[in-house]
Amino acid sequence: MHIDILTLFPDMFHGVLENSILKKAADKKRFTYQLVDFRDYSANKHHKVDDYPYGGGAGMVLTPQPVFDAVEAVKKEHVSSCPRIVLMCPQGEPYTQKKAEELAEEEHLIFICGHYEGYDERIREYLVTDEISIGDYVLTGGELGAMVVADSVVRLLPEALGNEASAKEDSFSTGLLEHPHYTRPADFRGLPVPDVLLSGNHANIEAWRRKESLKRTAQRRPDLLENQEFHEADKKILQEIKNNEK
Amino acid sequence: MHIDILTLFPDMFHGVLENSILKKAADKKRFTYQLVDFRDYSANKHHKVDDYPYGGGAGMVLTPQPVFDAVEAVKKEHVSSCPRIVLMCPQGEPYTQKKAEELAEEEHLIFICGHYEGYDERIREYLVTDEISIGDYVLTGGELGAMVVADSVVRLLPEALGNEASAKEDSFSTGLLEHPHYTRPADFRGLPVPDVLLSGNHANIEAWRRKESLKRTAQRRPDLLENQEFHEADKKILQEIKNNEK
Repeated sequence: MHIDILTLFPDMFHGVLENSILKKAADKKRFTYQLVDFRDYSANKHHKVDDYPYGGGAGMVLTPQPVFDAVEAVKKEHVSSCPRIVLMCPQGEPYTQKKAEELAEEEHLIFICGHYEGYDERIREYLVTDEISIGDYVLTGGELGAMVVADSVVRLLPEALGNEASAKEDSFSTGLLEHPHYTRPADFRGLPVPDVLLSGNHANIEAWRRKESLKRTAQRRPDLLENQEFHEADKKILQEIKNNEK
Repeated sequence: MHIDILTLFPDMFHGVLENSILKKAADKKRFTYQLVDFRDYSANKHHKVDDYPYGGGAGMVLTPQPVFDAVEAVKKEHVSSCPRIVLMCPQGEPYTQKKAEELAEEEHLIFICGHYEGYDERIREYLVTDEISIGDYVLTGGELGAMVVADSVVRLLPEALGNEASAKEDSFSTGLLEHPHYTRPADFRGLPVPDVLLSGNHANIEAWRRKESLKRTAQRRPDLLENQEFHEADKKILQEIKNNEK
């Protein structure tokens, strides 16, 4: 996979790209990346990339020219691929793990990050293939969103994670929130680990974990339980949780 | 405001903290921050911070001792304040703009970022005041989440943004997605700007923008329209949009 990141603030990315999973995956050649300052593509003699909005109003708007030209330039560097061109913006499709899995199948991703300004609508309508929002909150720019999407996608690439993490039991991949975890010491400042986890009885441990996972999801994120099929045993637990709430 | 970030990967933060709004707000003394590697607080002679989970299973779990001790140390440096202690985790409360506004009122925030591992449940139960998830996708660690929350909170601090951005019309602060923006040129590669925006008629421009904002929200994020009160004019537009969909 190759990732191009179009941004006016390439330096924002160094800490993240040079540490953690993205660095490791790049070192293992699981993916390559390029930071592209699209100001370099501005045809304006002062390298301007934004202008006042037609119709008036506060804030500046990114002009189409530098963004179109930068995208076309990075597309040409990878002629064989048909890239997904992703605009990071609050109006986008809410980002989910399913979308991460979809993007992880691609050969070439191009992220476009605005900063402060809005985007000229023609970028949205005629250039990009996807618009993504990482959540319902306001960020200063699209850069953090691009980092979030890149991290979540790259960790899904084959061999990117190694044995360092357990993708299988992660929240959202099972559709439920994870059960509680406990490790040493068994007693920390008088706070004990639940007896069942020290019992060595694996059937009981599995049953406890499933129950806690269902309980946590029902209490915190009941929306995740909708549209899921459950076994009879799970249904019984969910009914118990419901009865206890009354 | 003071922000402490507890992480095993402090270097991940430099690019983001040293550029963009966070840097500007720090320069203007709108907030101060400290990166704390909680590995330094491990009482283990090898500076271990994680251990196998009780009851078995894949992955490692962060032990409570280094995290409790690091939080207590940074609390002591700010004795007058009663900090919000925020755990970044997928099981947390889904982060929203409302939560950003709430956190922006605080004097002292402490973020705890895990990486790969889960957290010992006693951290969750007895140490933190808030658990936040930035979205329903799996990230390698809590670091990107902490950056996202810090950015969204700091930009709300008085005078942090200056005149560079228009917080007022942002998506989510009005409860609707933003209307389309257009800027120069009026014709880009044969793609024109809508006539109304060039008309100079401000009443028509406002009406067009409101309609486009409602239309975009209805098409992309109908969930945002629930539980909102609308004027008669808006209701009529929403009804038209509904009729056109049939």
